[in-house]
Amino acid sequence: VSQKIQIQEAIKTQGEVVRKLKSEKASKEQIDEEVAKLLELKAKLGGDDGKHQFVLKTAKGTRDYNPKQMAIREKVFNTVVACFKRHGAETIDTPVFELKETLTGKYGEDSKLIYDLKDQGGELLSLRYDLTVPFARYLAMNKITNIKRYHIAKVYRRDNPSMTRGRYREFYQCDFDIAGQYDAMIPDAECLKIVHEILSELELGDFRIKVNDRRILDGMFAACGVPDDKFRTICSTVDKLDKMSWEDVKNEMVNEKGLSEQAADLIGEFVSMQGGRDLAERLLQNPRLSQNKLACSGLSDVKLLFSYLELFQVTDKVVFDLSLARGLDYYTGLIYEAVLTQAGLSGDTLNGAEDSVSVGSVAGGGRYDGLVGMFDPKGRKVPCVGVSFGIERIFTIMEQKAESSADKVRTTEVQVLVASAQKNLLEERLKLVTDLWKAGIKAEVMYKKNPKLLSQLQHCEESGIPLVAILGEQELKDGVVKLRVVATREEVDFSRADLIREIRRRTSEA
Amino acid sequence: VSQKIQIQEAIKTQGEVVRKLKSEKASKEQIDEEVAKLLELKAKLGGDDGKHQFVLKTAKGTRDYNPKQMAIREKVFNTVVACFKRHGAETIDTPVFELKETLTGKYGEDSKLIYDLKDQGGELLSLRYDLTVPFARYLAMNKITNIKRYHIAKVYRRDNPSMTRGRYREFYQCDFDIAGQYDAMIPDAECLKIVHEILSELELGDFRIKVNDRRILDGMFAACGVPDDKFRTICSTVDKLDKMSWEDVKNEMVNEKGLSEQAADLIGEFVSMQGGRDLAERLLQNPRLSQNKLACSGLSDVKLLFSYLELFQVTDKVVFDLSLARGLDYYTGLIYEAVLTQAGLSGDTLNGAEDSVSVGSVAGGGRYDGLVGMFDPKGRKVPCVGVSFGIERIFTIMEQKAESSADKVRTTEVQVLVASAQKNLLEERLKLVTDLWKAGIKAEVMYKKNPKLLSQLQHCEESGIPLVAILGEQELKDGVVKLRVVATREEVDFSRADLIREIRRRTSEA
Repeated sequence: VSQKIQIQEAIKTQGEVVRKLKSEKASKEQIDEEVAKLLELKAKLGGDDGKHQFVLKTAKGTRDYNPKQMAIREKVFNTVVACFKRHGAETIDTPVFELKETLTGKYGEDSKLIYDLKDQGGELLSLRYDLTVPFARYLAMNKITNIKRYHIAKVYRRDNPSMTRGRYREFYQCDFDIAGQYDAMIPDAECLKIVHEILSELELGDFRIKVNDRRILDGMFAACGVPDDKFRTICSTVDKLDKMSWEDVKNEMVNEKGLSEQAADLIGEFVSMQGGRDLAERLLQNPRLSQNKLACSGLSDVKLLFSYLELFQVTDKVVFDLSLARGLDYYTGLIYEAVLTQAGLSGDTLNGAEDSVSVGSVAGGGRYDGLVGMFDPKGRKVPCVGVSFGIERIFTIMEQKAESSADKVRTTEVQVLVASAQKNLLEERLKLVTDLWKAGIKAEVMYKKNPKLLSQLQHCEESGIPLVAILGEQELKDGVVKLRVVATREEVDFSRADLIREIRRRTSEA
Repeated sequence: VSQKIQIQEAIKTQGEVVRKLKSEKASKEQIDEEVAKLLELKAKLGGDDGKHQFVLKTAKGTRDYNPKQMAIREKVFNTVVACFKRHGAETIDTPVFELKETLTGKYGEDSKLIYDLKDQGGELLSLRYDLTVPFARYLAMNKITNIKRYHIAKVYRRDNPSMTRGRYREFYQCDFDIAGQYDAMIPDAECLKIVHEILSELELGDFRIKVNDRRILDGMFAACGVPDDKFRTICSTVDKLDKMSWEDVKNEMVNEKGLSEQAADLIGEFVSMQGGRDLAERLLQNPRLSQNKLACSGLSDVKLLFSYLELFQVTDKVVFDLSLARGLDYYTGLIYEAVLTQAGLSGDTLNGAEDSVSVGSVAGGGRYDGLVGMFDPKGRKVPCVGVSFGIERIFTIMEQKAESSADKVRTTEVQVLVASAQKNLLEERLKLVTDLWKAGIKAEVMYKKNPKLLSQLQHCEESGIPLVAILGEQELKDGVVKLRVVATREEVDFSRADLIREIRRRTSEA
């Protein structure tokens, strides 16, 4: 009973939060998020009461896409897929769940965010956390040693969702990967070229692509005196530099992870460095780093990478940044991350002013030469490099752009509505629309026996249908159809044969 | 320990099954299925032993799609989506999991096949079982009273998988639904028109669309003396008539479900009836059925439906069949199911001779006027009718057709490979491919510093790339690029400006 009272208290408090936000005219997303919390609390109460209180919502951290959002999503996917195909990629698909053990030990500290399926007898399963591990499993299982593939699908993370910042528990990833034993940095450079092309084409505003190399990080850690067994955990702390200040990061290293203050300060010097090919050259001369073999091979590769990036004409956006770490365990070489830098469209609008510094990452990836070998019974390695676009954030930005634009987003492609001017013409409408469908024309009729002409015309206005084919008693007598242009209200009679030609002509122009 | 011995015995037996199939040169699918069972058994043993025995497989009843299968899948989806768009549908998407209670009570006896997620704190979730219930939840949640939408996505059922028959635990559904209060049978007829168009366009061989009506079934049950509380369960038994003989169905009704033999025999008479509009008219005169209000309104609607189907020119494939029941609880009116009737491509080849009678259903649907109301807090109803394509079976057939066809399925769309004739030309290749990408041409380079010309040409042969742009020392000196047509080995030099025009010209022809 005391638990019940607690929940009732929480409902009261949460109700006030919602009322306050509404009175303050907060954003729809913010209100929706708090309403969702309220509904969840009420659901708990309903469950405890034993009476059925139906909760009409999607699971926490997930959302439906309405037709308008789908129209935008289709546009984004078309751009992304066109780029992947331009670069010669094939595509594959894998199941939404994997054997639990397939995912075990691949994600480091993030493994706790994996969704497991209930044990209903049979195998233990988990929802995929990314598309990279299933890809590696696919390569090992089918003994594929080289492929260039893309994969667009949803992945699942039990993370703290923040709808207003475009962070969900179910979200799309668009991945492009190159597997195979090739000469250094050529596939890696193509991945960065792809990031550059897609972010430019989507016109999301200015962006930067940060690059670094796991070997440089590890070499740097060694050079700064980090004990071997602390490399991974210190690496995840460095990874937080995009969200936390250096002071907080240092604090975590020293006080939580037990690193010496001296080592932390040395790391601090390195992670503030940014540059291009020149920085790689300079660090190759650095007395500490040049002693370390790993660091040197990483730095030479970054230097080589930049020479290819110049040929690909993308160095304007790429920065060698020693603070970039990336959390996942499986990276072995080059790593990169693309961030939007234009506050106008990203930081301010999406996050609210208070954290406009943390402008979201929209793509990331790197080289993972050991992952496939973890799946191969004989440990045979297949070197891989790839990039993943976090497309939800991109959708959110595109939606905002669509909202602020004057053009209405159409959610269907209907070219013509077959309408009637008088009663009792349903049969004639159905016959005509059948002819149009047969000719491949996108056409509709209203599902009423006797719809009013006005309501048929209104439907065209609302859905952006450009043409109306009107049947009336006179037209039937004359063997013609009246074609009306919705925008200009112009009307011309056509024979049935000419009608199809005319609709094609008018809609291919549009 | 005894359990361990049991598993070891099972592994031995299963190993023999696999060896036998291999020696008999059974189909790859059949062998794969049995190997999967063997691996599962071995995994169990590994788990019990405590030592890590890695199982390289996808979850039971699921599969990866390789690039060739994806190319075919893309073709099928394009046909399906083009038809949905031609009929003016919008599209939506919903999360892969729903609150568990959203799915509860919607699927009758099949509810046991729902996948649940593990309770990791928070809401209880289940994977979606179809796209219809999430659609109804979406309508109620957003208070939408009319929409015509399609949704293509994967659904999940813990059914007994049979890969050889194209039955999976994760599979695609392609749904088209019309929601709204409209005049009788007009949207219903359009759904059948869509089935007719898609199955015709995919050229899967001959097909039939069976139609019936839940009201006719219920009226028939009442007229035959089935007690009210047995309607649903008798209905699921009738639904098995496509897989079981009438004798077995009758046996289940009488001995398992406690129906009187007399009632069962009366049902037997009705469910053997097939026809068209004429059958509906005849049954409206039937002394038993004509007494029943429900049956009469169902029969009148079927009659009306056939008049619209005539206008849509699809009556050649539609059969009014009183044995059609369909299992799901939520149907309230018209129901239908499309089956392929050409044994050559479906029954025999897919199922093996022993069950070539059960030619698979490839689409099904019906009217569900009560489902949205189950979600609406005030019970407001939104009448709906829709159809769902079971696309995996269609893929399987298309794959077989592709296998037996002479044309090679291409898995990329690359138009040109940028190749080099001598060493040390990587930089030049990267520059040229950058120009081509900029011009929107689909182009590749090999990721080697000094690939042999022969291996570059071989790559074109294997991937079906039609053109090669060859750079050599002479070409660079002359400021040209040699364009080679892979099929004819014809080679012509072009200036860089002309090269792009020439590639476009040659690949738009193809």
